Amino acid sequence: MAEHDSTASMSDAGDFALDGRFASAVREAVEAQDGDAISVLMEPLHPADIADYLEQIDDSARSRLLSVWKGGVDGDVLSELEESLREGVIDGLEPQELASAVRDLETDDVVDLLEDMGAEQQGAVLEALDDADRVAVEQSLSYPEESAGRLMQREVVMAPQHWKVGQAIDFLRNEDDLPDDFYHVVLTDPRMKPVGYVTLGKLLGSRRDTDLSEIVEDSFRTFRVDQDEGDVAYAFNQYHLISAPVVDADERLVGIITIDDAMAVLDEEHEEDILRLAGVGEGSLSDKVIETTKRRFPWLAVNLVTAILASLVIAQFEDVIAQFVALAVLMPIVASMGGNAGTQSLTVAVRAIATKDLTGSNVWRVIRREVLVGLVNGLIFAVVMGVVGVLWFGSPVLGAVIGVAMVVNLVIAGLAGTVIPVALEKLGVDPALASGAFVTTVTDVVGFFAFLGLAAMVLL
Amino acid sequence: MAEHDSTASMSDAGDFALDGRFASAVREAVEAQDGDAISVLMEPLHPADIADYLEQIDDSARSRLLSVWKGGVDGDVLSELEESLREGVIDGLEPQELASAVRDLETDDVVDLLEDMGAEQQGAVLEALDDADRVAVEQSLSYPEESAGRLMQREVVMAPQHWKVGQAIDFLRNEDDLPDDFYHVVLTDPRMKPVGYVTLGKLLGSRRDTDLSEIVEDSFRTFRVDQDEGDVAYAFNQYHLISAPVVDADERLVGIITIDDAMAVLDEEHEEDILRLAGVGEGSLSDKVIETTKRRFPWLAVNLVTAILASLVIAQFEDVIAQFVALAVLMPIVASMGGNAGTQSLTVAVRAIATKDLTGSNVWRVIRREVLVGLVNGLIFAVVMGVVGVLWFGSPVLGAVIGVAMVVNLVIAGLAGTVIPVALEKLGVDPALASGAFVTTVTDVVGFFAFLGLAAMVLL
Repeated sequence: MAEHDSTASMSDAGDFALDGRFASAVREAVEAQDGDAISVLMEPLHPADIADYLEQIDDSARSRLLSVWKGGVDGDVLSELEESLREGVIDGLEPQELASAVRDLETDDVVDLLEDMGAEQQGAVLEALDDADRVAVEQSLSYPEESAGRLMQREVVMAPQHWKVGQAIDFLRNEDDLPDDFYHVVLTDPRMKPVGYVTLGKLLGSRRDTDLSEIVEDSFRTFRVDQDEGDVAYAFNQYHLISAPVVDADERLVGIITIDDAMAVLDEEHEEDILRLAGVGEGSLSDKVIETTKRRFPWLAVNLVTAILASLVIAQFEDVIAQFVALAVLMPIVASMGGNAGTQSLTVAVRAIATKDLTGSNVWRVIRREVLVGLVNGLIFAVVMGVVGVLWFGSPVLGAVIGVAMVVNLVIAGLAGTVIPVALEKLGVDPALASGAFVTTVTDVVGFFAFLGLAAMVLL
Repeated sequence: MAEHDSTASMSDAGDFALDGRFASAVREAVEAQDGDAISVLMEPLHPADIADYLEQIDDSARSRLLSVWKGGVDGDVLSELEESLREGVIDGLEPQELASAVRDLETDDVVDLLEDMGAEQQGAVLEALDDADRVAVEQSLSYPEESAGRLMQREVVMAPQHWKVGQAIDFLRNEDDLPDDFYHVVLTDPRMKPVGYVTLGKLLGSRRDTDLSEIVEDSFRTFRVDQDEGDVAYAFNQYHLISAPVVDADERLVGIITIDDAMAVLDEEHEEDILRLAGVGEGSLSDKVIETTKRRFPWLAVNLVTAILASLVIAQFEDVIAQFVALAVLMPIVASMGGNAGTQSLTVAVRAIATKDLTGSNVWRVIRREVLVGLVNGLIFAVVMGVVGVLWFGSPVLGAVIGVAMVVNLVIAGLAGTVIPVALEKLGVDPALASGAFVTTVTDVVGFFAFLGLAAMVLL
């Protein structure tokens, strides 16, 4: 993250949501075609807040703003902008505006920008970089998407492992081009393999004649360029890492990942998981109706198929429903309770898989627990619904049928809610994405079949 | 986070899930009552991985392990252990074991441990601390739960704002008791109000006669002790903070929050949101059947009430169902599609509220979009189900009825899925927790009412 020239000292963190006065002041400046006034309004804002503001206004307001506020969008704002809007904003920039916008960014941020650009825009940005940065960026782009290689920055502060504290401090003092943020000096062997790191705090707190190897951190982790960025984020959170070197296939140091980037990945991965669990593809709040419709459609289509499957089960019992319409009234309750209990179990299982808490060593214990929880809750709700059945329809038999079906469906919900995500994970399918459809199909089909089937046996 | 004496250098991040050989080696050592062998096995592990292992084995295996591995659980492992197990493990420790375990922790980790202890254990831990730490910890505990004051550590490296680089470096070199991890020197005015900070990298890279005020970071944020930790985590992620000072009501510096703790909070908040959306209270994979049942029960009970409400709607149409049993077969499809579409909309809205992307300035645009998405998807599925209705039951009228009901319910789903979470947020109710029940009640009731009501009008 390059430094932005924001001078907002001592602002507190309560002011994230941009207030109405700001919005109307900006609108006035846009109408007056007063670019300088906009710059004055934007100046105290963090680039992330400027990006948020651009995301929250509608398309026409945004394009009017950008046309008046020439040169206002810098590289930091572009980095913060969500991908769906970035392309449009970049398209509106003159080549030299774009060039000056990206020149101050760290290489990892440039890579992040380039990933979503067309070939023409990519070429323009690459041309704007100086040679060393361009080589570094092109190298990063050669690594797989969402890998440690894409996430890392190339600017690494390193020192030979045999140096002393004084040598390292002198080296840092004489180095003109230090990264904006760095927290460790990585120690390397003669083959450029990282062998440990020293925190800047320890460096500052030690005597000049101390060997760096004496104050090296005990715990040290490196990532390979091709490792998944989700695993990187997990390891940062699990092991409280602040920065970690990235190595190539020959174990040579090629870059470094810092915790702020890992935190952003953790945030994105969570977001993705939540949206996938709800059957919503990736996307953003500023997407258009058509894009959003397209993304929501597949999951609804899958749900339609599973709903029709459930209807086919019901259709097998048309005769008994025609005689006892109360069955039609009560049957959605059994299916709905099963669907909810199944969703509870599957959410817990999907999360535990994501956090690597659900492993071979405890999977059977978790399955047993979920089934037992289903059984206990099933028994409680069986009694409740049994009573409701009797009071509402005056039929103890109907009460018994719905009670038994409830127990069966809640037990199956616990079982399916755990086994299905675990099995999908084993098959290499993202359990967050696919579990929901399978589990609700099971609970719908079992719910209707158990309830109507029992009713047919008992009542006909 | 105090340093652990792990010497796992160059281990890569692929080995999070502990493998089966490790588990069986530990089991053998426990059976042989060989505490030293366990220490040897555990030594290369990060405390977070030891904690994970303790969480994954069952209760009896855990208590046997802990009884053989006397003194093995140190403060870092306790910090990493999930709360539900921590109490039991602490209960099994001798007072002096507990004392030595907590003595090396930073104050924020001690506070985290104490929060979940009974009064007696708290007393034992507080007694084990030296006086300065005890005062600091007791002060932190006086702040509200889940506040910045609880999250911060008290050990702050600071310097008067008028110092030069050389003075700051000499001060750091002569200071015996620097925190294990720190990334900034906080500059304070004579009243102890923080006025900016200097990164250690800049300090190291500058000449000794440079004024600290010349190399101060442009962007600087402080938190109040009573701010919610979720807001703190959000700000760290939004503004790429690495550490941030915490001030009391008089704006005096009282502590510092570092990004690793903010990242842990972000992770917890996400976890909480996911589980709440699924109607699963907080809890962990190692909870017992009874605890889990109790936590799942309330949401299922709420769902039962909403399902019975939906059934009451169906009951109004018993006559038409008795004549046209096809209605009973098809009606769950309309409700199910509405429930899924509503869940999609509400998940997007709940997330956008959590990330402060859904604000007064775009709420109407988002509502309009969700309604339009519901309309478009509703029309598509109306055609599909119309055709299915005709082909399956040979009735164009039935096809038309289900088609219209589908459109109505998907539009209502988009509307309810956005308006309900926004309204709950305005009322101060967590939308992640409560939206699901309301939205599915709406889509069930509207789905059944629209479909059966139309059918009654047209068919009877």
